Amino acid sequence: MEKLTIVKIGGKVLDDFAALNGVMDQFALIDGAKLLVHGGGKAATDIAGKLGVEAPMVNGRRITNAAMLEVAMMVYGGLMSRQMVAGLQKRGMNAVGLTGADMDVIRAVKRPVKDIDYGLAGDVSAVNTERLTWLLEAGIVPVLAPLTHDGNGQLLNTNADTIAGTVAAGMSRFFEVSLVYCFERTGVLADPNDDHSVISSITRPDFDQYVKAGTIAGGMIPKLENAFESLAAGVKAVFICQSDALGEIYSDNYPGTKIH
Amino acid sequence: MEKLTIVKIGGKVLDDFAALNGVMDQFALIDGAKLLVHGGGKAATDIAGKLGVEAPMVNGRRITNAAMLEVAMMVYGGLMSRQMVAGLQKRGMNAVGLTGADMDVIRAVKRPVKDIDYGLAGDVSAVNTERLTWLLEAGIVPVLAPLTHDGNGQLLNTNADTIAGTVAAGMSRFFEVSLVYCFERTGVLADPNDDHSVISSITRPDFDQYVKAGTIAGGMIPKLENAFESLAAGVKAVFICQSDALGEIYSDNYPGTKIH
Repeated sequence: MEKLTIVKIGGKVLDDFAALNGVMDQFALIDGAKLLVHGGGKAATDIAGKLGVEAPMVNGRRITNAAMLEVAMMVYGGLMSRQMVAGLQKRGMNAVGLTGADMDVIRAVKRPVKDIDYGLAGDVSAVNTERLTWLLEAGIVPVLAPLTHDGNGQLLNTNADTIAGTVAAGMSRFFEVSLVYCFERTGVLADPNDDHSVISSITRPDFDQYVKAGTIAGGMIPKLENAFESLAAGVKAVFICQSDALGEIYSDNYPGTKIH
Repeated sequence: MEKLTIVKIGGKVLDDFAALNGVMDQFALIDGAKLLVHGGGKAATDIAGKLGVEAPMVNGRRITNAAMLEVAMMVYGGLMSRQMVAGLQKRGMNAVGLTGADMDVIRAVKRPVKDIDYGLAGDVSAVNTERLTWLLEAGIVPVLAPLTHDGNGQLLNTNADTIAGTVAAGMSRFFEVSLVYCFERTGVLADPNDDHSVISSITRPDFDQYVKAGTIAGGMIPKLENAFESLAAGVKAVFICQSDALGEIYSDNYPGTKIH
């Protein structure tokens, strides 16, 4: 099977033009078929603030109302998507910036209301793996914004990590998929205060032991649970690293964490 | 040759959700390969105003500075493009919202500085007709925003009428192209105050006579000159009409103006 590398970027690198250029330089170093998923960054909050749009909070959860969805469409689907595509084109990658609605690549359903009505937030219901494969086979690099659609004219806000994980799982039927989560830290750390304490390799038994010992705790637990779910769904390996390490994921010098 | 209908929409229909839905209903009625080009509408001015962004004016011409380009990316490349694609998907059309940077479909060069530096405004230098043909042959409906790129990472503001005309000319090598300009009036009018005075058919000799007689004057002259240029470049026919008439351009009941 052909290799496919799916990279999710988010956080501070999206907020800083120089950092974003650095990520694109790194992304260019990855050989073979590749796909980029971008999160939000603080631009959406900034623009929303300037426009006087505020996302209501219910029980400590942020709700996507119509005005916030428009901000997401503008910032994720417009500003970031188009900027990144122009930057990738500059670097010789034939990118296209898509939401789930574009070519119907990702459908979702409005999150069912239980305790909370999350508003215009969508849970992925279908990944159009045939269409994405068709694009990749034509040498195109899909750049996915964290927006999906319901097929009935409604766009929906969708978490970028979820999009990356679901697309990776779906594409594993056609490709040998590696899934890379870029974040602020150098990897999964044995000592959260020491960026040099990266745990370079984690298998399921390792994980269970690290959790039992308290080495892996807090927010890293669900992150890694998601990684193991991706592996169970057919993804070959999950990488957790800083965006600086993107170009090295397949090398012996890779400095981040590999989950396999 | 297969038929291709290229429709440019702009003006008030973009500012009103109900009107835009009406246009999409009409667009759905067009058979065969089709492509939509959308202009700006006043949303960009509204959003720019709220964000405190002002396009500088030089000698009465509006200049695209970096802040205004970001607004264009957000509003044209994000809000409008994504909204329209979701609406077309709802109506069974497999649309994709593109700027010139996406899949490198339209390249431009920054407008050369003569008397005025227009800033980040681009003149189209290349239409990627092969890529657009590939999309159309896959049953996809490209939706083009009025943004191009220079291949060096810079997006550029580009007039939607120009994009429609240039794409139509380029695609005439592969398709029998009809180009439709939707605008506020019912067509080219013999009496500008009477929407019932549509001149239904105009050829080049007709046009010369209408101009000599003063029947066609003012802003309609360059509009029609552009239409004749498109015909000279290989476009089969140019239609000027209200968006309500979109579904009827190939019927005997077409109420607008046909230039051929």
